[in-house]
Amino acid sequence: MKEVTAGVDIGGTNTVFGLVDKTGDVIVEGNLITTDYPEIHDFTRALGSALRSMLKSNPDLKLIGTGIGAPNANYHKGTIELAPNLAWKGIVPLADLVKKEIDVPVVVTNDANAAAMGEMIFGGAKGMKEFIVLTLGTGLGSGIVINGQMVYGHTGHAGELGHTTIVPGGRVCGCGRRGCYETYASASGLVRTVLEMLSELRDPSVLRDIPPSQLTSKRIAEAAAEKDPIAVKAMDFTAEKIAFGIINAIAFSSPEAVFLFGGLAQAGEALFEPVRKYVDSMVMPIFRGTVKILPSNVPESNAAVLGAAALAWNEFGS
Amino acid sequence: MKEVTAGVDIGGTNTVFGLVDKTGDVIVEGNLITTDYPEIHDFTRALGSALRSMLKSNPDLKLIGTGIGAPNANYHKGTIELAPNLAWKGIVPLADLVKKEIDVPVVVTNDANAAAMGEMIFGGAKGMKEFIVLTLGTGLGSGIVINGQMVYGHTGHAGELGHTTIVPGGRVCGCGRRGCYETYASASGLVRTVLEMLSELRDPSVLRDIPPSQLTSKRIAEAAAEKDPIAVKAMDFTAEKIAFGIINAIAFSSPEAVFLFGGLAQAGEALFEPVRKYVDSMVMPIFRGTVKILPSNVPESNAAVLGAAALAWNEFGS
Repeated sequence: MKEVTAGVDIGGTNTVFGLVDKTGDVIVEGNLITTDYPEIHDFTRALGSALRSMLKSNPDLKLIGTGIGAPNANYHKGTIELAPNLAWKGIVPLADLVKKEIDVPVVVTNDANAAAMGEMIFGGAKGMKEFIVLTLGTGLGSGIVINGQMVYGHTGHAGELGHTTIVPGGRVCGCGRRGCYETYASASGLVRTVLEMLSELRDPSVLRDIPPSQLTSKRIAEAAAEKDPIAVKAMDFTAEKIAFGIINAIAFSSPEAVFLFGGLAQAGEALFEPVRKYVDSMVMPIFRGTVKILPSNVPESNAAVLGAAALAWNEFGS
Repeated sequence: MKEVTAGVDIGGTNTVFGLVDKTGDVIVEGNLITTDYPEIHDFTRALGSALRSMLKSNPDLKLIGTGIGAPNANYHKGTIELAPNLAWKGIVPLADLVKKEIDVPVVVTNDANAAAMGEMIFGGAKGMKEFIVLTLGTGLGSGIVINGQMVYGHTGHAGELGHTTIVPGGRVCGCGRRGCYETYASASGLVRTVLEMLSELRDPSVLRDIPPSQLTSKRIAEAAAEKDPIAVKAMDFTAEKIAFGIINAIAFSSPEAVFLFGGLAQAGEALFEPVRKYVDSMVMPIFRGTVKILPSNVPESNAAVLGAAALAWNEFGS
């Protein structure tokens, strides 16, 4: 029997999952199921049934635990709490419900923590005890590892770097406050920066021909690669803001590395090079040169499943 | 034989020390020695000699380890590194030198980490696994405990919250950068705020009669207690800035409590009440009401020695 864990990533629209061995190979990939069940019990029943059938078709595999990445997850309680983008309202006892379906230990965390766990167990943070993963998507998620352990905090909700204030009185954030890190340092933050620059500056730009609702970080990165002046300035401004938050995080926990992950990180060296430059020039002298700024080393296509599975390996593996 | 640890606090001018039992009683208080030995070996010899003579006079005590709080201390290496306010230049192998004098294990950290350890072992953080201590003195030091462990980071220099940027482009800091937390949230930050308000506002104030070089946070707190309008506004502004940094720290590590310690915290409820109010109104909703803002519960008079001794108890105690 080969031991595996199940990695489950609950997204706003779809849920993906797979069975993953100790080395990070996805041994069996599940067919995605919709997240959009109005009733949580119907969702967990569908997930349980899919997992059981995968195990039945692969009798040589032994499931030792399940890890789940989900929005607004509380690690301590195994719950999803007040998730604005999911159909299930209030506090959902997800770990308990999944455990009823498939009788192995279940652990739950948010997707950024799962990404950090994936990096630690299967990716570029192997052997590191101090690092931070920033997921630069629509928002900015963060997973923080200190002394070799994920930081969940007293409430289970630690690691909300996206909602540290980097510009007092700055851009309005979805959390109801202003100037949060993620309103600048994320794919949507980059789009907002382009719109701001289109209003303030007179430079010509191909981005002036795209309706704001269709503007994406990918399109902006492409324009920057073609030396579009607004796109270039917006990328540089965004890199500075990303660096700014990294510098504050360094003063807090002095990590060995910061991994950038997600849509915006796809811009590659065009983003990493200026981020490194700004970190180096703005960081407190005592920390200069002590932190590596790296791309994630977990395959993007399977990252969510691998992160959730890594969480279970870390918790239940021998 | 009663087991004790030695707690040693190396200040810019004087070094204080004592022998401390497991319950936090200072069993023998040392006579302070000057820190101002131009040669580090002369200093460690004087300290060693003082410790040996205390033990000789108290043959019923068994020393199990020594903890040292010192500026710019590196926990991982047992060194003091590039301390601007000490006579010893470069990298000083303090732990090794002290171990040569008095043959027990030696552990070194900075004074804010020692204060946090004192709080955890002997003070108000007993039983807590997630808390932060802010020392509001001339600067702002911080000691961070996560998962029950002190955060030293990859470099050994983690916990520099005083040098997170809270006002981009703000006040000049001793670290060479601008807008650091400690330029606002500290005793000297409060003095700077008063000077700024004396220039900007036209309110009458007793503080206009004091030369800026003689203005202290204590005098400002007294004036605030007497409803001096500038002092009252400066205290409120400072409380808001203290709260601002706390809120960012909460998003990072979601602590159970934040302890305020040091000169500025002596202002008592006049400071704590507005800090709590600002934290509550500005913190991310998910963390509202989850964090206690508390005064230190380690006796101020012995805090430095107790913190250093606690460090040794935590490391070497059974």
